[in-house]
Amino acid sequence: MNTPGRLALVAGSGDLVPQAIAAARDAGWEIRVLALHPRADLDSEAPFQIKVSRPDQVLREIRRFKATHVCAVGGMHMSDRERETFAEFAGDKGSAAKGDSKLSQLGATLLKMLGLPFIGVHEIVSDLLAPQGQIGAIPAEDELLRTAEFAFSAARRAGALDLGQALVAAGARIIATEDIGGTDELLARCRAFRERGLIGDGRGHLVLAKTSKPGQPLHVDLPAIGKNTVALAQMVGIEAIVVETGRTLLIGREELIAAADAAGIALIGVAAQDD
Amino acid sequence: MNTPGRLALVAGSGDLVPQAIAAARDAGWEIRVLALHPRADLDSEAPFQIKVSRPDQVLREIRRFKATHVCAVGGMHMSDRERETFAEFAGDKGSAAKGDSKLSQLGATLLKMLGLPFIGVHEIVSDLLAPQGQIGAIPAEDELLRTAEFAFSAARRAGALDLGQALVAAGARIIATEDIGGTDELLARCRAFRERGLIGDGRGHLVLAKTSKPGQPLHVDLPAIGKNTVALAQMVGIEAIVVETGRTLLIGREELIAAADAAGIALIGVAAQDD
Repeated sequence: MNTPGRLALVAGSGDLVPQAIAAARDAGWEIRVLALHPRADLDSEAPFQIKVSRPDQVLREIRRFKATHVCAVGGMHMSDRERETFAEFAGDKGSAAKGDSKLSQLGATLLKMLGLPFIGVHEIVSDLLAPQGQIGAIPAEDELLRTAEFAFSAARRAGALDLGQALVAAGARIIATEDIGGTDELLARCRAFRERGLIGDGRGHLVLAKTSKPGQPLHVDLPAIGKNTVALAQMVGIEAIVVETGRTLLIGREELIAAADAAGIALIGVAAQDD
Repeated sequence: MNTPGRLALVAGSGDLVPQAIAAARDAGWEIRVLALHPRADLDSEAPFQIKVSRPDQVLREIRRFKATHVCAVGGMHMSDRERETFAEFAGDKGSAAKGDSKLSQLGATLLKMLGLPFIGVHEIVSDLLAPQGQIGAIPAEDELLRTAEFAFSAARRAGALDLGQALVAAGARIIATEDIGGTDELLARCRAFRERGLIGDGRGHLVLAKTSKPGQPLHVDLPAIGKNTVALAQMVGIEAIVVETGRTLLIGREELIAAADAAGIALIGVAAQDD
């Protein structure tokens, strides 16, 4: 855990953002919010509105605030042009747009030049990372556990493409992987497959796996699940959600676990074996 | 090219099916159509309607017709239960649903037991496979070609998951991979990303890559593109479609190439390097 200082918090989308702000303030951090996307629930923070086309302004604001640490929280959605502008500014030679992991590495490089450390949201909001094994009240029987392990390993392999962090499997069959649309859209797609009768009528269990990408910087964009993930998963007929031990954020931990228990969904923490 | 005999043709969805039937008949084959999905345009064939839950009936019909060869053409959409039933019937020990490549291997095993060869649709419909290099009238400049090669290689790696055969990249960034919904749905998804401003505004080119999966049996489910693929790709803003040389079916070759030329989309054949 870091000693509280002055935190420049780059805010994306999702429920984790207000939670992280509150927790960091409780822990004694001075906070300046820099918002990547406009969001009404942060109005009271009077956030600095980031223009991705002007990374220089963002750096100036971070300096002006005299930040001692920088942290990025929540979903980040950037267009190809925004990615290219950012990559160029960070001194990347290639002119093409980059995937999220590559972009995070560039961001870390940029802050290093400023002499500022990037810290992970899990270093601010304690008790947020998924533990090993059964997390909620619902146990996973042997066969469900085997499917969960298959899905988890497949998600790591898909993550190596720097595409997405989540994947849905039915038994030994991979149904779909997350893409730039994110996990909620992945689950909406699987729900449509179910409604069309393509998945979920077999003996093979449906499982959602969520992991970090091999080699991704862990101070940004950690995989995260919340009670909203559980609600969408339930509509797909998913029986277990498997996440990476120590590297997945459980957003609103108690509510999340209560929702999974109520839905009869097993929550499982698994360690990545391929590091 | 096989000597024409008696062909049991398992018909899935898509434009390739009537084309393959006509071409096979022109080449002198006697044909019995077995339809996986009902489709009105095959009514004149009075197809045998496959119940995936009764593979025994399908085999009986193939025997009754005294087929000398079996061929599968078009898109196959099966539910988890159908996959499990089929896998069990083919003697597969595992009880969980299987991906398409695994299922194809099981199908080939089954026919081998009957003493019947599975043949590929490209052995019936000649001149259908993608050649090497520039296919249409639109050349690919250096940078577009680099993106195409990146996308192609990424599609092969994604295919190793036995998920889908297609992938869209924007510059050095993977946007989305095909899943059990198929290529048309992949392109519809990318169109939505474009409308939301997430892709296509950068200097990086948008490319659709389509390849076979590493290790997939090549007598079934060869990747295919047609003029419909081109129309959907154009709506996404795709500048090049890269396909696997010798292993991708060009459906309605002349119309397809004319459509790509009219849309200003480069068609490129690339050989897989990882076999």
